[in-house]
Amino acid sequence: MYKISELQLLLDQEINTYSYPSSPRNLYEPVSYLLGLGGKRLRPALLLLATDLFGGDVEKAVKPAMAIEFFHNFSLMHDDIMDKAPLRRGKPTVHEKWSDSTAILSGDIMLIEAYKLICEVEAVKLPACLKIFNTISTEVCEGQQMDMNFEKEEFVSIEEYIEMIRLKTAVLLGGALKIGAVIADASENDQELINDFGTKLGVAFQLQDDILDVYGDPEKFGKQVGGDIISNKKTFLLIKALELAKDDLKKELEDLLNNQIITADDKVAQVTAIYNTLNIRKIAEEKMLNYAAEALHCLEKINVPTERKEVLRDFASKLITRDK
Amino acid sequence: MYKISELQLLLDQEINTYSYPSSPRNLYEPVSYLLGLGGKRLRPALLLLATDLFGGDVEKAVKPAMAIEFFHNFSLMHDDIMDKAPLRRGKPTVHEKWSDSTAILSGDIMLIEAYKLICEVEAVKLPACLKIFNTISTEVCEGQQMDMNFEKEEFVSIEEYIEMIRLKTAVLLGGALKIGAVIADASENDQELINDFGTKLGVAFQLQDDILDVYGDPEKFGKQVGGDIISNKKTFLLIKALELAKDDLKKELEDLLNNQIITADDKVAQVTAIYNTLNIRKIAEEKMLNYAAEALHCLEKINVPTERKEVLRDFASKLITRDK
Repeated sequence: MYKISELQLLLDQEINTYSYPSSPRNLYEPVSYLLGLGGKRLRPALLLLATDLFGGDVEKAVKPAMAIEFFHNFSLMHDDIMDKAPLRRGKPTVHEKWSDSTAILSGDIMLIEAYKLICEVEAVKLPACLKIFNTISTEVCEGQQMDMNFEKEEFVSIEEYIEMIRLKTAVLLGGALKIGAVIADASENDQELINDFGTKLGVAFQLQDDILDVYGDPEKFGKQVGGDIISNKKTFLLIKALELAKDDLKKELEDLLNNQIITADDKVAQVTAIYNTLNIRKIAEEKMLNYAAEALHCLEKINVPTERKEVLRDFASKLITRDK
Repeated sequence: MYKISELQLLLDQEINTYSYPSSPRNLYEPVSYLLGLGGKRLRPALLLLATDLFGGDVEKAVKPAMAIEFFHNFSLMHDDIMDKAPLRRGKPTVHEKWSDSTAILSGDIMLIEAYKLICEVEAVKLPACLKIFNTISTEVCEGQQMDMNFEKEEFVSIEEYIEMIRLKTAVLLGGALKIGAVIADASENDQELINDFGTKLGVAFQLQDDILDVYGDPEKFGKQVGGDIISNKKTFLLIKALELAKDDLKKELEDLLNNQIITADDKVAQVTAIYNTLNIRKIAEEKMLNYAAEALHCLEKINVPTERKEVLRDFASKLITRDK
């Protein structure tokens, strides 16, 4: 069995030595720029871990794993335009460094490149892998659309929010694992179980992200604590607080959301104080741990010796106890 | 043998009754809006014609043909953002009617939908069809990047220009025909010949477009005659004129390109007069007819009875003698 760090290293090497067409240079340069900014390569590493879990040939899964990483970065490149994000991993986003047009077209070529990479899987596995890849691609876009819609909506329910993060974030983890399982000839039942493991873990991952945004250690978190609060982002925490707050507290929270003149620091402090009053952190952590437990339950049911699951079990634990 | 009009009608029906997911509504609405604006469905009809030419089952080619139409409209949706185009087929573009973000994300889902459609081809044909589809998708994006680069470049050669229109416009026609041929089990030699037929015809098609922009009948053309001149678009005509004009005439042409205060009508009239002096129309028509002749030569070499080729021969003639 591989360690995840070995697979991350392998993927980093493959991605950093990936050979792009030489022309038009300015179409491919932003692709290699964004992929070169690093990141933990978690999604493609998960795909390789799944292949390894079921005793498959990890070599055969490298190109499909890279497809997942290219797809993920395509979605980041386009989302950053839509969100007008200035920075990605601490460096200028593609649309900032070049232009919106460049980020649109280089994003497009990145999505096409992802499809080229997934097509390098063994021919006999191609229809099954493409079906999964098509589904997750569609769902990630649907999740992004829901996320944008939520910005304009007055009321978003917890159920709708969970569905949004399931689509935007979680299905990519589940799908990556499932493709890895298909490559290793896992049974259909095991394919579904590892897909569910990844999807539920992905929801937990995003909930942990929401929690860290407010309660993370500023020194470890690496980005501004309270960013979601400042931008009125409808996270699990805010939606839950709006659901639970009554009377004066509810009015106080709504006033803070509408307050255009309050300083960012004051807004973060006061909204956090309301979250604390309502015990939001604990509620969010319980929800997160619940999804993580469901994920691990799926993992346990997979029909391979339990010691082979150690890497994924460990991965799941680290994901939900991470502090950055 | 089907007539092209029958296939266009069939495709229109399929596209107009295509069933989109119901949610998120505003992700799919712009897709159905753009596809609903019509157009001649020439590219998918070519795919079906190729299947029919080689005696294949046209029914089996409908989904791949729709993939070509979805792909074409994806590229229009994104190109229109980059070109800041207000109108498409006389109606507001998606980014004008909704927003840039909507046009980016709905374009993305349209590209993914195109891949889903191409994946509906028979499993045994899937690798070959995807290989062609991946190639044309890449090349269309490369062509668009070259086109945008040309706007900023001082000098573009005829050779570079032809390469740009080959990628941006022509390979999609060639690739559509080739996919149709693959579905009908045509020989590899015939696949290459029909691909070349389509690609050369596509170059001729774009050159005719350049000519019509200046010399089209305003009543038939449907858009402003001289639009390319007004925007200093580096078409075959302008590039050739800049190549051939000497001394005073060259200076006059360059002054017109840099003139910020001249009226649009005067600019069109004066640039057209220079084109006339240099015999540009005839040169462009010769180039166009040359490509058309090469295309027809490829068609003739295809190993099917000559009477079966009548529809494609006819199609090619109409394309290059069209006046709108």
